[in-house]
Formats: sequence, C-alpha cells, structure tokens
Amino acid sequence: MRYFVAVGHKAVTTGDFKLDDISGGAGRLDILVRCVNSSFFLSHSIRKDTQLYLVLQGGSDAPKTVRFSGEEVRYLNPDERSTSSLIRNALMKKLPAEGEVRSSPGVYVSKMSFSDVISSLSEKGRIVYLKEDGKDIKEYSTPEDPVFVISDNVDLTNEEEDILLQYAPDTVSLGPNSLHADHCIILVHNEMDRTSP
Amino acid sequence: MRYFVAVGHKAVTTGDFKLDDISGGAGRLDILVRCVNSSFFLSHSIRKDTQLYLVLQGGSDAPKTVRFSGEEVRYLNPDERSTSSLIRNALMKKLPAEGEVRSSPGVYVSKMSFSDVISSLSEKGRIVYLKEDGKDIKEYSTPEDPVFVISDNVDLTNEEEDILLQYAPDTVSLGPNSLHADHCIILVHNEMDRTSP
Repeated sequence: MRYFVAVGHKAVTTGDFKLDDISGGAGRLDILVRCVNSSFFLSHSIRKDTQLYLVLQGGSDAPKTVRFSGEEVRYLNPDERSTSSLIRNALMKKLPAEGEVRSSPGVYVSKMSFSDVISSLSEKGRIVYLKEDGKDIKEYSTPEDPVFVISDNVDLTNEEEDILLQYAPDTVSLGPNSLHADHCIILVHNEMDRTSP
Repeated sequence: MRYFVAVGHKAVTTGDFKLDDISGGAGRLDILVRCVNSSFFLSHSIRKDTQLYLVLQGGSDAPKTVRFSGEEVRYLNPDERSTSSLIRNALMKKLPAEGEVRSSPGVYVSKMSFSDVISSLSEKGRIVYLKEDGKDIKEYSTPEDPVFVISDNVDLTNEEEDILLQYAPDTVSLGPNSLHADHCIILVHNEMDRTSP
C-alpha cells in the first residue's frame, strides 16, 4: 500500500463552505482536493493500492481527517468541484469521539488529529517526510508500505515536525524546485511505478 | 523555452459555458485547465520559461487556440475555477482571421488549428510526442526548446498524428502507466529541472 498524509493548516472542518470558493473561504481546501486527484487517477483507472489522509486543521470543528481509500472509492471524478463535494459531504457527518464514519464508498471521516494519524500509520509502514532538503528520491530505496507526509502551502509547524521526528522518518526530496503538494504526489507515484510496481 | 501543446478534442470554443460545469458542458475543459496549473506552478513562483498552447476543437467556433506565456502571465491562480474564467474571457474575444488577440496579461487567443500550432512551433524547437509506446524519458536527451505534444482523455486522431509525423517527432513515454495529461506535464518538467535547468 502507498499512504499519503496531506496537512491543510487552515482547511475547513465544517461542511458549510461554498463549492465556488474552495481556495478562499474553505481555507485553501483546493490544495487538498488536488492531492486527491494526483493520489488516485491513472488515465483509465483508479490507483487501488493508495490511501490518502487529509488532515484538516481550520475552522471551528478542527481537527478532522478525511480518508480516501483507492480500493473502495466510488463517485470520484478528477475535477476539483466534484471532489470538494465529496469532502463537504464527509464534513457534514455527525462524528463519534473516536473511530471513523463512512460518508460515501471509500471516503471516511474522523476526529483524528495529525498526531493520531501519524501514530496510527507508523504501525503500517515507514514514515517518509517530503521536504526540500531531504535525500533525492532517485537515490532513495522506497520501503514497503511507505507513509509519505506532505504539507499544504505552508511548511509543517515545529510542533508537527516534532511529532514526525518521534518516528525517525526518512526525509526525501523530489528535485531542485520547491513544488506544490499535488505535484509531489505525482512524482512519488511515478518513481514507485518504476521501482516498486 | 519549454513549449507544451495540449489538444482538447471537444473543449468549447465559445465563452458561454458555466464555470460550474467545465467537465461536462464545456467539453472536458477541466483537463486543459489542469494542464495550465501543471505547466506553470512552482511552490512560490511561476515557470517563466514555459509556454502552453491549448488547442480547442469543440463547439461552434472551432478551432481556437489559447496560449499562456509564463513570462507575462498575471492573475493566474492554481484552482480550476479561476483558470477557467481566464479561458472563458479569452473565448469571448472577437478574433481576426489571422493573428492573436491578448485577452489578459500573458493569455492570447487565436483561430489557429492544431496544424497551424504545430507548423509554427516546429520552427522554434523539436517536436516531442508524449505517447505510451515512446522511448522512456529517462533515456531521452531532451533537445533545446522542446515542443511537447499531448492529448486530452482521448488519443490524437489519425489525422492529427499524420500532421505530427510530417515533422518527424521524437516519441517519448513517461513510465509504465498511462497518465492524465496534466500529470505528464509535471513529470516532464521534473525531468528537465534535473537535466536541463
């Protein structure tokens, strides 16, 4: 399995945002929505071997985590608007203090924080922190079931980095330029398609 | 300069589509809009060394070509809706039979067909056809001023391929999977960032 964790520092956690305003009022939810596209879409199919955790940290009901499972997901289209709608439906669900609720096939929502997500995934595979000053992915031997962690348009906070460091992550970079989160996911997938198909 | 040509076989050529419906009523314009994002966005800047030609072949006023120039472009944001709006504004311009009209800074529109675009760009650099059965880009030495040609969700037609073949293009692939057009652009840029910065 390939796991991705994308952190949206100001991304809304309530379902009352407008689909026309995902870059503004929804706290740059557009960045996370594009991560859904790049995590799952092949030309004529969905990557079933991938799971994406969107950690939403903005708004009045933070934190929440929306998880997409490639194996089960349905009603997923590549455009931003329809994916935003799937996320909005998830954020409208009433949640228990612990555990996930399924909002649509392959889309789950919970009150998990960044720390909860990383702790849980650290039991499934090695944590890989995508960061500009990391080791070039071309010289990196990707472990089985890697958990790639990536931030939105701002870096992880010191507190978030401290959480990651507890799990002694590998730190990996994707080339000479600093790139958008969704673009990084494309490059990671391609590298793994070539080396660990 | 890095040139990209993306063909939208059913993409609308009139500005009367709804921004809420770019995947449906606008003839999969969403695919081309995502190509704009992946052609130009770095984390905190725009790729000035890139030009993108969107060849629109659907609707009542086909063909039209919308050209984005990274060196000049302004008002460009990464989300699909705002880029669709820039394209819609371009499609509302009254056009002469020949030549481009500027619709906003760095965005130009013309009545150029696919054949016109390829003929014109073939004078600027080598044509590189991105196709699944091509030579792996890792073993390909990218020429100066390459012109990468890519199709939307359907392959180039036989007629379009015949046009390309007149210019003896290199045929290049990007890995073991068939990918969305915008994802291909990300991979091409990364390869060139590493080899021809």
